Amino acid sequence: MKLARMMHGNQARWGELDGDTLHLTGGMGGPRTGEQVPLDRAALLAPAEPSKIVCVGRNYLDHIRELGNDTGDLPSEPGIFLKGPNALAEPGGTVQRPDWTQNFHFEGELALVIGTQARHLTPENALSHVAGYTCGLDLTARDLQKTDLQWFRAKAADRFCPLGPWLETDLDPRDLRVQTRVNGETRQDGRTSQMIFPVVDILVYLTRFVTLEPGDVVLTGTPEGVGALQPGDVVEVEVQGIGVLSTPIG
Amino acid sequence: MKLARMMHGNQARWGELDGDTLHLTGGMGGPRTGEQVPLDRAALLAPAEPSKIVCVGRNYLDHIRELGNDTGDLPSEPGIFLKGPNALAEPGGTVQRPDWTQNFHFEGELALVIGTQARHLTPENALSHVAGYTCGLDLTARDLQKTDLQWFRAKAADRFCPLGPWLETDLDPRDLRVQTRVNGETRQDGRTSQMIFPVVDILVYLTRFVTLEPGDVVLTGTPEGVGALQPGDVVEVEVQGIGVLSTPIG
Repeated sequence: MKLARMMHGNQARWGELDGDTLHLTGGMGGPRTGEQVPLDRAALLAPAEPSKIVCVGRNYLDHIRELGNDTGDLPSEPGIFLKGPNALAEPGGTVQRPDWTQNFHFEGELALVIGTQARHLTPENALSHVAGYTCGLDLTARDLQKTDLQWFRAKAADRFCPLGPWLETDLDPRDLRVQTRVNGETRQDGRTSQMIFPVVDILVYLTRFVTLEPGDVVLTGTPEGVGALQPGDVVEVEVQGIGVLSTPIG
Repeated sequence: MKLARMMHGNQARWGELDGDTLHLTGGMGGPRTGEQVPLDRAALLAPAEPSKIVCVGRNYLDHIRELGNDTGDLPSEPGIFLKGPNALAEPGGTVQRPDWTQNFHFEGELALVIGTQARHLTPENALSHVAGYTCGLDLTARDLQKTDLQWFRAKAADRFCPLGPWLETDLDPRDLRVQTRVNGETRQDGRTSQMIFPVVDILVYLTRFVTLEPGDVVLTGTPEGVGALQPGDVVEVEVQGIGVLSTPIG
């Protein structure tokens, strides 16, 4: 099932995608209300209402190597950083390249949204707390990663996390193709099976330390091929079985 | 004016403190409803409903030195890190020392809560976006700061941010005494006038990159004197003109 979030009148609403039609629902995954909107006329929003966005860095070996972070040992635990809800951007929405970075990078990723409160998850029950999967674009001011005390400007600025176009609820996350295209040219092409820490491991790890709330977003890391964006570029993140998240850069 | 948040029946409510009586209000700083609760019977909550908690690291020179982070130059910009709302803990509430840290540190701080949405603030208007000031305890797994890719376990775990006991709305933040006591013994004793980046500068800096929403919390950094906590300790953070935030360690 594909669950989308959109503006409808003055309200943010959830809906269920059926063919080219969005059937509005009461809440995320709730019953249909009878209201319908054609998909091509819907003003989609990021399909999540998070209290936090938890991101995994350095989760694909080839990406670790391309950034010169390969120390010879694989990370022994997931490397985690946070964005706030201010970082969300809607599918199709333009993101301005900030004037304070000279090296504004794309990182296409599989993202997931939590469905039920989660603490101390086990490998057996972890995926049952996921509401669905979507595409995430972890925008990064690469030049400021080195100078930030922690990656605040580099990762957590407004609109540094486009997300969407919708949640796919029925998906096995273990071996999905993750592609990023810039202006139609493929720049990243990996598979989630290459993750050092797969989705289940990430959820078990995170919930040793924090409670994940319904709506929280987890970004699972990016494969190799990251690079710089210029105004006028269009970034597309496509995850197999989900769809395409398109982000014009202004 | 002192604004407190508390559980009342099954609801989280705001109130205004007058002597030893809490007058419940409609929302934060709203009109009194006529309901009253004696302060000593109120189940206080952290006085904020944040979308994010933004923290300043290394904002007092003596603290930079005590951790061996003095490079000879003062930081040229504030060093920022994030916690999520999961980190909040209520005044008086026990925080368990996690079993995954061997060096669990207190850092007492002046905290502030945003009142109105803030982006691109100026030195002239910055403080007008502050709803009030309170005491914050930035709990830190010091041993994991070095091994975390970013300070996730070290700073952002559940209940790593006790806050309270209430917001003081009428306060000049420029020169307040900030003290931390452990089991009655003074361990930190600084003044906000020693901050490398004062409150106004922090707000102007942050809002160049992120939108601060009403309810967001900003922690302004800790003076020297940080140290390790053991189960059974009681930490008190006192900021002049506000009150005392007490946190037993379990």
